[in-house]
Amino acid sequence: MRALELIPPSEFRRVRGTAVGDDACLGVLADMCRLNALTAVKRAGSGHLGSSFSAMDIAVFLLYEELNTVSLGFDDPDRDVYFSSKGHDVPGLYAVLHSLDVVPTEKLVRLRRFGGLDGHPNVRTPGIEANSGSLGMGISKGRGIAWAKRHLGHGGRVVVMVGDGELQEGQNFEALQGAAHDGLSGLSVIVDRNALQSDKPTEEILALGDLETKLTSFGWHVTSCDGHDFSQLRRAFRELEAVTDRPQALVARTIKGRGVSFMEHPAALEEGGGTYRWHAGAPDDESFERARDELLARIGPVELELLPPPEEVLSAPALEAEPKSGAGGRATTEREYVVEAYGEALVELAGRHPQLVVLDADLASDCRVRGFEEAYPDRFVECGIAEQDMVSVAGGLARHGLLPVVNSFASFLASRANEQIYNNASEGSKILYGLHYAGLIPAGPGMSHQSLRDVSLLAALPNMTIVQPANSEETRALLAWAVEQATGNVALRLAIGPSPRRIALPAEYRVEPGRGAVLRDGKDVVVFAYGPVLLHEVLTAAELLAEHRIDVTVVAMPWLNRFDREWLDSVADENEAIVVVEDHAPVGGLGDALRRELNGRAMTVLGVHGWPAFGTPPEALRFHGLDGASLAGHISEALAVAR
Amino acid sequence: MRALELIPPSEFRRVRGTAVGDDACLGVLADMCRLNALTAVKRAGSGHLGSSFSAMDIAVFLLYEELNTVSLGFDDPDRDVYFSSKGHDVPGLYAVLHSLDVVPTEKLVRLRRFGGLDGHPNVRTPGIEANSGSLGMGISKGRGIAWAKRHLGHGGRVVVMVGDGELQEGQNFEALQGAAHDGLSGLSVIVDRNALQSDKPTEEILALGDLETKLTSFGWHVTSCDGHDFSQLRRAFRELEAVTDRPQALVARTIKGRGVSFMEHPAALEEGGGTYRWHAGAPDDESFERARDELLARIGPVELELLPPPEEVLSAPALEAEPKSGAGGRATTEREYVVEAYGEALVELAGRHPQLVVLDADLASDCRVRGFEEAYPDRFVECGIAEQDMVSVAGGLARHGLLPVVNSFASFLASRANEQIYNNASEGSKILYGLHYAGLIPAGPGMSHQSLRDVSLLAALPNMTIVQPANSEETRALLAWAVEQATGNVALRLAIGPSPRRIALPAEYRVEPGRGAVLRDGKDVVVFAYGPVLLHEVLTAAELLAEHRIDVTVVAMPWLNRFDREWLDSVADENEAIVVVEDHAPVGGLGDALRRELNGRAMTVLGVHGWPAFGTPPEALRFHGLDGASLAGHISEALAVAR
Repeated sequence: MRALELIPPSEFRRVRGTAVGDDACLGVLADMCRLNALTAVKRAGSGHLGSSFSAMDIAVFLLYEELNTVSLGFDDPDRDVYFSSKGHDVPGLYAVLHSLDVVPTEKLVRLRRFGGLDGHPNVRTPGIEANSGSLGMGISKGRGIAWAKRHLGHGGRVVVMVGDGELQEGQNFEALQGAAHDGLSGLSVIVDRNALQSDKPTEEILALGDLETKLTSFGWHVTSCDGHDFSQLRRAFRELEAVTDRPQALVARTIKGRGVSFMEHPAALEEGGGTYRWHAGAPDDESFERARDELLARIGPVELELLPPPEEVLSAPALEAEPKSGAGGRATTEREYVVEAYGEALVELAGRHPQLVVLDADLASDCRVRGFEEAYPDRFVECGIAEQDMVSVAGGLARHGLLPVVNSFASFLASRANEQIYNNASEGSKILYGLHYAGLIPAGPGMSHQSLRDVSLLAALPNMTIVQPANSEETRALLAWAVEQATGNVALRLAIGPSPRRIALPAEYRVEPGRGAVLRDGKDVVVFAYGPVLLHEVLTAAELLAEHRIDVTVVAMPWLNRFDREWLDSVADENEAIVVVEDHAPVGGLGDALRRELNGRAMTVLGVHGWPAFGTPPEALRFHGLDGASLAGHISEALAVAR
Repeated sequence: MRALELIPPSEFRRVRGTAVGDDACLGVLADMCRLNALTAVKRAGSGHLGSSFSAMDIAVFLLYEELNTVSLGFDDPDRDVYFSSKGHDVPGLYAVLHSLDVVPTEKLVRLRRFGGLDGHPNVRTPGIEANSGSLGMGISKGRGIAWAKRHLGHGGRVVVMVGDGELQEGQNFEALQGAAHDGLSGLSVIVDRNALQSDKPTEEILALGDLETKLTSFGWHVTSCDGHDFSQLRRAFRELEAVTDRPQALVARTIKGRGVSFMEHPAALEEGGGTYRWHAGAPDDESFERARDELLARIGPVELELLPPPEEVLSAPALEAEPKSGAGGRATTEREYVVEAYGEALVELAGRHPQLVVLDADLASDCRVRGFEEAYPDRFVECGIAEQDMVSVAGGLARHGLLPVVNSFASFLASRANEQIYNNASEGSKILYGLHYAGLIPAGPGMSHQSLRDVSLLAALPNMTIVQPANSEETRALLAWAVEQATGNVALRLAIGPSPRRIALPAEYRVEPGRGAVLRDGKDVVVFAYGPVLLHEVLTAAELLAEHRIDVTVVAMPWLNRFDREWLDSVADENEAIVVVEDHAPVGGLGDALRRELNGRAMTVLGVHGWPAFGTPPEALRFHGLDGASLAGHISEALAVAR
């Protein structure tokens, strides 16, 4: 395909100069922003277009016309504050901020790249008022900001965009009641009512019912309008502004994918056979060209700035090096998704175990439980974006004879539903928790999604075994163990992306509680690691070190808080130094557990220090010193210290 | 006062035999249960009477008449399931279960005592269907149970009692929408609408508004009735039963403290000058006698069973031994509440720091921030029982120039609002978190309230300092440090009960990041501990060991995840063995942090293994081997091993 082009801010100024405030002009500006968002996502290789497009007209209306923010500047305490709680629409917002010279072009072309723009909103980017990406927090935050403005006598109103699916999170209702109780008239919420959440209709996943009545019953002033009609938006905002005794909500009826015919709901949903495919991910070349041409045709003549070809993805040596060895020499470069094996194994196990039921919080596709839903629709419980409810529902199911398997991203499940997991565990029932998207990679979505604390969040539970498989076979075996043999709760950490290589486990290896697998047998240092991403990097490091005659034992350790001491001593005693490589913070993970187990044994624990970096996998791994080459350095240093 | 008496189950059978189903009879049974609940709470020394009494008529109606549970038995899969989500009303429920021969007298007289009945519902007690005490989970759990019944073809309906204040938790609304989406007609929710939460009116703390309309807008069938009128309850349940396409809610208008004139709302609220004093805690002797006489007068002639005097509180030697020494010999037996110092210090600091604001989630009295509310009403943000909202509101406040101090019990705040705390931290703002009721003691309320995981839940956050003061002065100093000097977030763990003794710190001691205080200087072993409760036990152990010529260094270490290495080496190097005593699980606390810091240094880490025991403080401490005498044993063993 041809090189990518961006519409520079100067063109926005030109178009805007032609007829400020004119609705047709705002429409053109919005389409220009759509084109830039499309380009940024195409270049990034991922990002959320459907939501960016449904919210685009509103964002343009707010920042170009309604709010004082751009004219006062994002540091002025009297500015209006606008942010999106759902956060998926941030490529769209970036494009608007770029068009207004708030976000520079150099940043926009580095969406989801290290040093560029976060995959979800982060306040380190100018124009971003709140970190989001974890759903359901925005109204509360907006309430805090509006309270602060009122208290400090600062001017400006607070406008928070929320997704309609996002309203399934209970925290929204906490915030709604609190803002109403407080009569916080400086707070306005816009619901981007595009009727789709992730890849399915909201009414199918978890119906919102009569949203206007619901919001009104919480004491808010509620109005609605067409979210793509600027005159209606203008009228609605005049109505909201006139309300002085309570917060206000605008239910903006929008179309997901608005502006590109084949991305628009409901046509796109029908075309996808009931699944909307433009929620996340970059379009392929052909779709990109079609979308681009369609937008350009509507925009009319416009100058485009040719972008330099994207900087090469910083390749960690890991991705270049051909694996040279592995357990029994069976290493391979074949990539695999452990999560696919998980989804398949769930279906298989369900055949033998009628008590097994699967719960989902609107991530069925990502968590690969859609297949289970299709195979066993009556044993699939869709809870919507409501992790706390999902976990407590599982508690009820487990107490009454079922074996619930609960699924969400690790960063949401282990954290937001932590007290519910504790409560279930305290009842002594058995529940399995699928902690998806565990670890640093993929690093594009950013810190709201990267889960580097989940092991620590579950580690102090009395009856929770935490495991992470290295490859597909082990995923199946660990899941079978969890279903058929475990007596307590099991948290199964799963990498969501493709493994950089298929981690080969020894032919004789079988899953046994507390025992890992030796992938390479060395004599100088033993390295414990888990999960396909970092096992790959560790193997790469071992290969590099072998060239320097440093002989590394690599242990794939799926048991993160449980040890067979005899096995452990057999593995760790004959080596000089111990290194633990965490796909987790260096606090609260396998390293801490090993330190407790091997009381007094010195070890080097490497992991993700500080906030997880975003970017491509190699960028993020290298930043944290966890790519193969960096690890080789760390391991040899650890060895030097130990000697 | 005279010895306590209980109405035995035989008397309930006699009364019941006179006119089953007759409303007057149910009323007498309910009053008899009230008397027994009153007696149990009086004997326990704590418990929740107001809520037990408001829900009592409903509980009696359900278990004596409406539900099949008692006749089928609590193990029958076809049984109706009833439980209370709020859980405070469990003394009342215990009394009903006792009257029906489900809970034995030996258990009822051991309410909140080791081996007796938990302070909040726990499924280990016959008749208790779900663990609660952590608010807002019940509707979700009931939804899970109703789903399981429908899926498995089991008979029986599910009835969940919720408090009206409890409805402020967002999880309720997740569950409401999920159950409606699912058309779960087997689920009924009763709202105990007594219009008070904890010690204030619901409408004052966080108005629920038109509750019926709100619940209807979530797709539920809603009705209401007088929750003390059995014929109205009967009629309401016939109405609920007739609904076959959706879950149903009954808003039962009740009176908190119902049945004892001076405990009844609103009279009791007025008498308390706007504060309701019968929410928690045992009545004094005089109030007990008045309440007892009032109930007996209404019940009429009834046989009473004289109870043996309560077994002596198992005194840990800690409580008997006169502290013999301490830092500089200044030890004292004076008890103190560090949390009172916290509340006072907040008010003082607020005078110097206009940006300081305090947030509360309906625990203002327990967290001692009522004084702040009175002193600075415009800087006090009451969020109701909605911890997630509270934390994200703090996030908004912090981003706009304020310094929020967020308060709740550690078990709720660190756990339920964990993802919100992470999100705030990721914005780089500064927020202080008051983690109240941290640790094992008081052990009466049970595992929903005892916080033994909070350090582990916050430890992997990149910019969170976790501290726990030993006494009042240090509480003030640490809070001042947090407000005036800390650059990142600070979590302040606070014991809620009286300290067994005032922990005396050396005269020259000043709060400095990463440095603790040496309370006793020994030569054989160094013991690190924190918080008044376990520092007291450790000092007691040291005193006991001194008699055996074992010379213990006791270090009060307020910094749980931050160390001044130079100081640490000076303290820990000259001793043979290191022991860490955690008021926390032995996973994820100070011990793990010290192991990371002192890489390769062996140490013995003692703490609360498994589920925290409930009971009196000495019972719980002894059970976990954390009383002075047990600790003395553990410390000398650790010393023997090290030698």
